[in-house]
Amino acid sequence: MTRADRYDRFFRAELDALKEAGNYRFFADLERRRGQFPAALNRHAGGERPITVWCSNDYLGMGQHPAVLTAMHAALDAMGAGAGGTRNISGTTHAHVELEAELAALHGKEAALVFTSGYVANWASLGTLAARLPGCVVLSDAGNHASMIEGMRHSRAERVIWKHNDLKDLEAKLQAIPEDRPRIVAFESVYSMDGDIAPIAAICDLAERYGALTYLDEVHAVGLYGPHGAGIAERDGVMHRLDVIQGTLGKAYGVVGGYIAGSAALVDFVRSFASGFIFTTALPPAVAAGACAAVRHLKASGTERAAQKARVAEVRARLDALGIPHLRNDSHIIPVMVGDPVKCRWLSDRLMERHGIYIQPINYPTVPKGTERLRITPSPVHSAADIDRLVSALAELWEQCHLARRPMAAQ
Amino acid sequence: MTRADRYDRFFRAELDALKEAGNYRFFADLERRRGQFPAALNRHAGGERPITVWCSNDYLGMGQHPAVLTAMHAALDAMGAGAGGTRNISGTTHAHVELEAELAALHGKEAALVFTSGYVANWASLGTLAARLPGCVVLSDAGNHASMIEGMRHSRAERVIWKHNDLKDLEAKLQAIPEDRPRIVAFESVYSMDGDIAPIAAICDLAERYGALTYLDEVHAVGLYGPHGAGIAERDGVMHRLDVIQGTLGKAYGVVGGYIAGSAALVDFVRSFASGFIFTTALPPAVAAGACAAVRHLKASGTERAAQKARVAEVRARLDALGIPHLRNDSHIIPVMVGDPVKCRWLSDRLMERHGIYIQPINYPTVPKGTERLRITPSPVHSAADIDRLVSALAELWEQCHLARRPMAAQ
Repeated sequence: MTRADRYDRFFRAELDALKEAGNYRFFADLERRRGQFPAALNRHAGGERPITVWCSNDYLGMGQHPAVLTAMHAALDAMGAGAGGTRNISGTTHAHVELEAELAALHGKEAALVFTSGYVANWASLGTLAARLPGCVVLSDAGNHASMIEGMRHSRAERVIWKHNDLKDLEAKLQAIPEDRPRIVAFESVYSMDGDIAPIAAICDLAERYGALTYLDEVHAVGLYGPHGAGIAERDGVMHRLDVIQGTLGKAYGVVGGYIAGSAALVDFVRSFASGFIFTTALPPAVAAGACAAVRHLKASGTERAAQKARVAEVRARLDALGIPHLRNDSHIIPVMVGDPVKCRWLSDRLMERHGIYIQPINYPTVPKGTERLRITPSPVHSAADIDRLVSALAELWEQCHLARRPMAAQ
Repeated sequence: MTRADRYDRFFRAELDALKEAGNYRFFADLERRRGQFPAALNRHAGGERPITVWCSNDYLGMGQHPAVLTAMHAALDAMGAGAGGTRNISGTTHAHVELEAELAALHGKEAALVFTSGYVANWASLGTLAARLPGCVVLSDAGNHASMIEGMRHSRAERVIWKHNDLKDLEAKLQAIPEDRPRIVAFESVYSMDGDIAPIAAICDLAERYGALTYLDEVHAVGLYGPHGAGIAERDGVMHRLDVIQGTLGKAYGVVGGYIAGSAALVDFVRSFASGFIFTTALPPAVAAGACAAVRHLKASGTERAAQKARVAEVRARLDALGIPHLRNDSHIIPVMVGDPVKCRWLSDRLMERHGIYIQPINYPTVPKGTERLRITPSPVHSAADIDRLVSALAELWEQCHLARRPMAAQ
């Protein structure tokens, strides 16, 4: 056996274990159709089929909005494809400068900083703050996203995990930290997989009482909540109480990239010390321009947000009428609970093959074992007919899969 | 003083220290002109000025190549802006699948995997391999890029640093590791700041003798070297001896993004276990399509590579004629050595203000203190007139800055 074969044997054994547990990921090969989304084409071993996407994070269909596409075409024509360098070495284009000013204004902050992704924004920002504030302790909600967890891990700072959205536990943990140590309370507004929402104001109360910086991830909220789409903190009137608001340009804003907004000093600090920001090629100017157009559009228009709310309510009501169990929450995310990785994959495969409906199964490690689910994200671009097809397909398969319908009394 | 002010005071003090050391980064606000690059517009406090960019990593001007821009416009029209999800959850478009097949073929490997950036490709891939191979030791060239260093740090694996490009030291360090421990030799082909090139074949000899996986970062080489632009390993005829070839789509390929290529098992392993790959929104399909067009173009065409070589030789000869010191190397990177952060910044500022020439100063921590430099990257899109202006401006400022010209005898 050669050297390379020995290593490959190890990799294959690990992959086999994933497969046996039902947690191996198969990627669906999609071709979105601009102007027809959520319609798309799925290429598979046997050919291709038209499908409807029900699990996208392009929550408002901004990925095909004319304002976004026009801005991207124009930027390509004006400035070309890539930025050509890191932000420091020839990669800062005027499109980046404009986008950062727009994002700072959106969140009512002095400054903003754009990263190649929301993941990198969290990893680099939280990682840098926690590593460089001497003796820092990070108080992390138990439900925080992988990107924040990796940032904290990177920082080597002490990490204290508080029970998900539990104010009593957060306070107890804040109290236990010696007074002179800097601390960061890190949490999300809308949690991606359960769709529940943090009590931001109450968390800010505690952070102020115990001298903590507040770091809020709004990636599943920006564009979607608040009168200007600035997120849950805007909706709740508490943006000014957050030291860092982190967001993404790749979900409701329909493009790609991530950012933070905060005080001029904090943002400049991250800009100056975060390896994951400094040593990487800047986003293409066309991406920055498209994202900026999306932010501006959703700042002025509430139409998409209102339409999304209506679709979400409609899908929930129809699922309830059929007794198909889904997690209650106040957000736009509808987790239909299956509770078994094999059944979850089975449902997803049958939805795709028989009904042309694409909902990726969400299994461990993205969610805890036993809480496997189909995560449905209705959007303004889903039609009444799309909803009919979704609900009747789910009803039929739910039956065949022998999954318990929710008792009518519990609805 | 409020809670937030106390933190800000700390951030400002750290930034002041950077400024005092001459290492604070000022970003130049640029607007590239598609079709006219390296011409661009620089916006500054006093207005705007036309400039010529001499420090871009868009090494071949592919960022404005019609094949790339046509592919991006077409993909925007066909598929819209963003991918709309992680690769697993609705974000794998056919453009990603095609790009990965193209990259695997380029490097003669079974598979490839695209990441949001070259930084993330290194961090996530090296981090995952080193963390998950039980007892793994990573042997890291002392000159490796921050993204590899962060990946190793992330992995918590034992890291052994060998002297830059030093085969004796690498062998001694390989010998010292217990035979049964897996090990990875991680290095670059072209080192970005000095432009020197690794002895890849000899490193592979050692890796084979001592049972190590070989991980090669070719970000400053892909598109630029080898008959199909696959990099230095292709030029040297040793691609098949490398287990991982990592590259970028954001430098010679002119767009953005990063990748690895390797065996099917290794790539699937990274795909399945790397947090930085799994939990992040996929690149926009238009980015994947543009990068794919660039890879295909540079696979077939050697014109750009030949023109770049000629421009690099020309600039070197002109600098030599003036006795302006630059690091000798066999690559396309010309580091003009200044050796002082303040003078380096002064030169860069005067070049921009007086001559409309943009070369970012490269200071600590990007390079060691005392080796501050102007890093010049001639490209096929620089004209003879551009070179004349560059060289005469440098000559004039060099005089004023009282920097020692290279003694004629040492040229």
